[in-house]
Amino acid sequence: MNAVITGTGSYIPTIKKENNKFSDSRFLNADGSSFQSENTVIIEKFKTITGIEERRYAENHFNASDLGYFAAEKAIEDASVNAEELDYIIFAHNFGDVKNNAIQSDILPSLATRVKHLLRIKNPNCVAYDILFGCPGWVEGVIQAQAFIKAGIAKKVLVIGGETLSRVIDKHDRDSMIYSDGAGACIVEATNDNESGILSHASQTFAKEEAYHLFFGNSYDKNEDPNIRYIKMYGRKIYEFALTNVPNAMKVALDKSGISINEVKKVFIHQANEKMDEAIIKRFYRLYKTPIPEGVMPMSIHKLGNSSVATVPTLLDLVIKGKIENQEVKKGDVIILASVGAGMNINAIVYRY
Amino acid sequence: MNAVITGTGSYIPTIKKENNKFSDSRFLNADGSSFQSENTVIIEKFKTITGIEERRYAENHFNASDLGYFAAEKAIEDASVNAEELDYIIFAHNFGDVKNNAIQSDILPSLATRVKHLLRIKNPNCVAYDILFGCPGWVEGVIQAQAFIKAGIAKKVLVIGGETLSRVIDKHDRDSMIYSDGAGACIVEATNDNESGILSHASQTFAKEEAYHLFFGNSYDKNEDPNIRYIKMYGRKIYEFALTNVPNAMKVALDKSGISINEVKKVFIHQANEKMDEAIIKRFYRLYKTPIPEGVMPMSIHKLGNSSVATVPTLLDLVIKGKIENQEVKKGDVIILASVGAGMNINAIVYRY
Repeated sequence: MNAVITGTGSYIPTIKKENNKFSDSRFLNADGSSFQSENTVIIEKFKTITGIEERRYAENHFNASDLGYFAAEKAIEDASVNAEELDYIIFAHNFGDVKNNAIQSDILPSLATRVKHLLRIKNPNCVAYDILFGCPGWVEGVIQAQAFIKAGIAKKVLVIGGETLSRVIDKHDRDSMIYSDGAGACIVEATNDNESGILSHASQTFAKEEAYHLFFGNSYDKNEDPNIRYIKMYGRKIYEFALTNVPNAMKVALDKSGISINEVKKVFIHQANEKMDEAIIKRFYRLYKTPIPEGVMPMSIHKLGNSSVATVPTLLDLVIKGKIENQEVKKGDVIILASVGAGMNINAIVYRY
Repeated sequence: MNAVITGTGSYIPTIKKENNKFSDSRFLNADGSSFQSENTVIIEKFKTITGIEERRYAENHFNASDLGYFAAEKAIEDASVNAEELDYIIFAHNFGDVKNNAIQSDILPSLATRVKHLLRIKNPNCVAYDILFGCPGWVEGVIQAQAFIKAGIAKKVLVIGGETLSRVIDKHDRDSMIYSDGAGACIVEATNDNESGILSHASQTFAKEEAYHLFFGNSYDKNEDPNIRYIKMYGRKIYEFALTNVPNAMKVALDKSGISINEVKKVFIHQANEKMDEAIIKRFYRLYKTPIPEGVMPMSIHKLGNSSVATVPTLLDLVIKGKIENQEVKKGDVIILASVGAGMNINAIVYRY
């Protein structure tokens, strides 16, 4: 019994925030001191490294679970499944529903329950739960869906990744420009066709000194209430960590699948930072002493920023639906889904479309 | 391949809060109005219904992940496993780490990562994630551990439930007296012995009007900041919901196992409310037209209150270790683990010890 993705969906929030909208920001260093450079210089440097030109924020009256619901509806329609037949709804996120202008994460009930409620699913045997696994949460949800299928306890699973990072950013932190809001989803179904579907996976958690590379911390503005915390990261450490470990994890997954590197048509990688993603793919191909095929790594970060758990399913959906120029996935293509983020967690799935 | 619990552990916080410590509370109705009755009357009535005489609160410098770590350490020792050999760490909770006197849930990184960090586990292939599934989260974690074992992707899994509900209660709400802090854990391992271990399970999510029976809501004191929210519930609705649905779910699991009701030696049920638990067990046995065996339902609620995800693993650990008077589990005994809570989620595991 194998697991195949039969439908995808994504929701791209409507509020566009271009880089120049940060030109009046008062960016500070971690120690609270001011930058020597002008904001225009800071923003230009930011763009060169991350590739981000603009990002999307959710409208005030929507929360992460709403975004997830919008993406889920599309995935269900795309897969032509009856929502009442779903065995599981898995919702990956890292901050839950954070209301606009509030600072508390609302995770009671779970976001998966909220989506099930919004989808008006009556069947109580559709089990709805949330997973917290950093940015790789959605990919991990797909791995869990496959496990339930292989264990014989599920045939149809809805896996959602949704996040509103715009609600948990410290506006005095340059890194706040990285984060965006969004949601992506897919339907994973059991199949007897062993030709397509998930071929292999790898999943890891590095929790020694890496555990707090991404963390919940105070504003760089030392006058702010120390009881209020935001998403914070040690960017340089994450960059080095990712470069060392992500290509290896992708290789573990690919080698497990028995597929040759030359057969890999696309790598859908977490949209964290363009320079980092490029360096990862470079090292990955170097492990196989193989040149990087042109267009192997579709990117959405320029216009969508880093929406955590939502980047991989959104990117996959956009490419499948032909919404990214010069990018497509054809029946039979081998693709890799890969992610890295808080935990620090890494995962990769090798998949034949 | 079957899944067997090879070790258990629990952590009972040291701060004892007896009912009389609530005698100076200013309890209010949901609409903000005062009660007509004296606090002594309110507290006495509370005790009659819930059975709770006292509950435990974590020391100020400990968070939910710390409690989970303490329980995990004991479970690992009890199972005599090498922590480096764990394939998964699953941490069930519903509010994350909430610092004393803070109102934000800190779930970045996941609590499972924090425990892995505290356990100093180096092996990156030990995958650490959190599950949000209401009070039944720990039981669900055990079900997921079994799925991973059956799917062939795990052999040894640490499943933790930890919560500090004392940090998310509205002190003007009588229901705040129900909640307590705690943590429990177990090691689930793959076994070829099909005689012992998990025989069957049932798991459900009711997300129609039940989705918000337990929710994150404002204080009953209408003068409080509406942006600050607490754990809230519609107790009467939950009571009725649980009575209607929990016995059925337990029956589904038991019938699936092929085990006769007469073989069931113990039912470890979520310690939510003594009267409710008694009514559930009564209905469960009535479904089989069988009298309730004496002592079939060990209870810890009198002294420990309702610590959410922690009640079932803590109770199981206490009984296995002979720490509850006149209660024991012997090799070969069939037991049921059952839970109900936010989601609304229900689950049950039939297990041969």
